[in-house]
Amino acid sequence: MNIAYLNGQFLQKELILISPDDRGFLFADGIYEVVRWYQGDFYDIDSHLKRLKRSMKELQIKWDEEDSFPNILHELIIRNGLEQQQSKVYLQVTRGCAPRTHSFPAPAVNPTVYAFASSIKSGTKEIESGVSVMLKKEMRWSRCDIKSISLLPNTLSFQEAIESGNYECVFIRDGLVTEGTHSNIFFMKNGALYTHPESDHILSGVTRKNVLRIAKSLDIPVYEEAVSEAMLGNISEAFLTGTTVEVTPVTKLGKIIMGNGHPGPVTKIIIEKFKAETSALKG
Amino acid sequence: MNIAYLNGQFLQKELILISPDDRGFLFADGIYEVVRWYQGDFYDIDSHLKRLKRSMKELQIKWDEEDSFPNILHELIIRNGLEQQQSKVYLQVTRGCAPRTHSFPAPAVNPTVYAFASSIKSGTKEIESGVSVMLKKEMRWSRCDIKSISLLPNTLSFQEAIESGNYECVFIRDGLVTEGTHSNIFFMKNGALYTHPESDHILSGVTRKNVLRIAKSLDIPVYEEAVSEAMLGNISEAFLTGTTVEVTPVTKLGKIIMGNGHPGPVTKIIIEKFKAETSALKG
Repeated sequence: MNIAYLNGQFLQKELILISPDDRGFLFADGIYEVVRWYQGDFYDIDSHLKRLKRSMKELQIKWDEEDSFPNILHELIIRNGLEQQQSKVYLQVTRGCAPRTHSFPAPAVNPTVYAFASSIKSGTKEIESGVSVMLKKEMRWSRCDIKSISLLPNTLSFQEAIESGNYECVFIRDGLVTEGTHSNIFFMKNGALYTHPESDHILSGVTRKNVLRIAKSLDIPVYEEAVSEAMLGNISEAFLTGTTVEVTPVTKLGKIIMGNGHPGPVTKIIIEKFKAETSALKG
Repeated sequence: MNIAYLNGQFLQKELILISPDDRGFLFADGIYEVVRWYQGDFYDIDSHLKRLKRSMKELQIKWDEEDSFPNILHELIIRNGLEQQQSKVYLQVTRGCAPRTHSFPAPAVNPTVYAFASSIKSGTKEIESGVSVMLKKEMRWSRCDIKSISLLPNTLSFQEAIESGNYECVFIRDGLVTEGTHSNIFFMKNGALYTHPESDHILSGVTRKNVLRIAKSLDIPVYEEAVSEAMLGNISEAFLTGTTVEVTPVTKLGKIIMGNGHPGPVTKIIIEKFKAETSALKG
């Protein structure tokens, strides 16, 4: 059984179809969220809803039922029998359907709201052993803070990572490390934790925010400061964060091997704490 | 009657629907072309086909029937009874449908090819009187040479132009004028014509290329060199080029009024020559 959601209705996924006039299809004119379900509850769904609202506001997309977001997601978990599985729900809102022209439809049309749920496996091997990450000059637009579906640069860069045997591609903008194609990145340097500050150039990740909180609770010094590419030789540990990757150690970054190729000690502590939080959600 | 095209079939537009798994809908993972029909023939369809192939190659999208592009477009003109009208045909190719993950589907799936035709009016008033254009710091990605559907920054910027009473928004990247959201831009400076050279930062416009040819045929000195924002005070004329805007004079650029607010003499000559070419296509 595969039940998805479209504009107020839960339907067999196969029955869900989109108009080619949808501005999501023609212009990437929409936003999305992915929320993870840990066999009992969603992880920090409040932050996802807050970010969804912010993304829509930035794009001037109005979805009157935005507060039904948690209910839609939960309903999809239940209707697909995923309560006892690690799963994720994807929800996308586009500006809606209108004859193709760059400017917004006037008067505004109803947005298209589409959502689906699927089971997901934790990257146990990657989290235990660490992963390789490639570095690439930033190619995305200047509003990476908006979680938009304008993801072509992300897919191209991620594909490049996969084809070159890497787990993720991390971008360098103006000499500074920003983030991955679908993850944030953290560094340990001189006993302190660093990650790029919130700005137009990174997505304010929900896992990022929670890892910052976890690190502070562990009395790890934390700096929301960008790390330059030139400083990467001085990094002792690195890890990725994200709804899909959770907290995944980086053992190779570009050409640099980290910690003899093993996850670092601080990374491991943060992973344990994060796991404890997600395990506590289990019903 | 409204006949559109999807994956080899000509169908009533209302019957055409797209899967929400289409990577065009989820990732903006696709490209497009818009070709103009002048009551008898398409304008330089060869250049459009060449660019379509290039865009697909850059994205590693394979459409086996790519050489049927001119036939599909012509068939849409005929089936919609548009032979005697100024019209345009839009054709979009996406990587196809697959469960959502950033990397390309492996093995590859069939691309989605969607096309439709519609009548279009020449912007007679704009071409005669000229238009206002706003300037904005570049916000797009670094591969503007690919005619991708990852157009969110273009729509947001064009909407800003419309809302502020402008006809187009032109981007400035690193102090240099690049192009508009769906047009290229030319300048007259010291008796010579300037436009941004082909690069990753502009689309190689079909009208742009033909205007360069026209200008050379008129013995106008032509430089494919970027004009800096700082130099805009020294500009005597400016105009936009594009399949939709054709050749449209710019009489106000940011805060600068050009030629006392009237289209410049060189601009007018190029417009006449361009009109002569498109009129000659009429059957």
